[in-house]
Amino acid sequence: MYPSSLEKLIEQYMLLPGVGRKTAERYALHMLDLDDSAFEETSQALLDVKDKITTCSQCHHLAEGELCGICLDKTRNIHQICVVSSSKEVISIEKTGQYRGVYHVLGGLISTRRGIMPDDLNIDNLKNRIASVDTEIILGLNATVEGETTALYISKKFENQAQITRLAFGLPIGGHLDYADDLTLMKAFEGRKKM
Amino acid sequence: MYPSSLEKLIEQYMLLPGVGRKTAERYALHMLDLDDSAFEETSQALLDVKDKITTCSQCHHLAEGELCGICLDKTRNIHQICVVSSSKEVISIEKTGQYRGVYHVLGGLISTRRGIMPDDLNIDNLKNRIASVDTEIILGLNATVEGETTALYISKKFENQAQITRLAFGLPIGGHLDYADDLTLMKAFEGRKKM
Repeated sequence: MYPSSLEKLIEQYMLLPGVGRKTAERYALHMLDLDDSAFEETSQALLDVKDKITTCSQCHHLAEGELCGICLDKTRNIHQICVVSSSKEVISIEKTGQYRGVYHVLGGLISTRRGIMPDDLNIDNLKNRIASVDTEIILGLNATVEGETTALYISKKFENQAQITRLAFGLPIGGHLDYADDLTLMKAFEGRKKM
Repeated sequence: MYPSSLEKLIEQYMLLPGVGRKTAERYALHMLDLDDSAFEETSQALLDVKDKITTCSQCHHLAEGELCGICLDKTRNIHQICVVSSSKEVISIEKTGQYRGVYHVLGGLISTRRGIMPDDLNIDNLKNRIASVDTEIILGLNATVEGETTALYISKKFENQAQITRLAFGLPIGGHLDYADDLTLMKAFEGRKKM
């Protein structure tokens, strides 16, 4: 139905998350409506990402070169290390613009179900980044079984070498109390603050 | 926030229809999770489309070379010419698998509002494709003001040179042809009326 080169492009778009056949067709046909240069630019952008994007040797966040932009930034507080499972979380936290510490990307979470063990993750390197016993390790991990397991493992492992904290649990801002699940409500009660 | 090469890729994804910043970020980050070869393959697919996709010199449908697959197909009935506004409609009709004639892609619709006149469209060439007065021209145009105007213009222009029919109003008024489901499209073909 489609010329073969177009069919191939449609299949490539179908690799994207949440993109089915119909959407992929729409994307491919839309590209044909654009300027010829759009093909070259998108194509080049893909190759550039492949060639240039590396993993920061220090924190394992996305980088272009040896170190990522955050590790290179001398104004960041290296005595605050936020531990997250992937670069996606780094980006979410950076968007708030409030955090001035650094990160440590684990590259996943401990999961017995999926056979992911502590040794498979970027946990050991964390000890080289702890400058003193005053360094704060902030656990920014998902509130799931895997997240809890990983948080527990890290806090046990480094309890004598650093101050370990974790992000607060509670109601999301703008959220309605009656939509919150039991566990969230319970955590919100436990963590209540004096006004 | 993102390394510059990744930022560039995100911007490229934002060119796609219905893709905002958030979705584009999701696409770009997802690509990083895939094999390195995915970048090269997608990149190559884009360049291939740019280099290979042409317009059929006969019907103006998408082609790879001088003529499109439909015009090259000797089993198609060249005495039935379905006139559509764009290649998207050809693809929708081909999906029904019912139509065995050929196509004529106008490259748009007459629109006084947008300043698109008959001369801007691939209408004149149609006369070279009418083999005899028995040739049927099937108007497969959107049920919109522009579609109606174009249908009227073509039926007037060729009324003495061919049999002119149009798709039955199984199509919802105001709807676009490429969103119709297969059965509706098929019924529209069966019920086509002489103009």
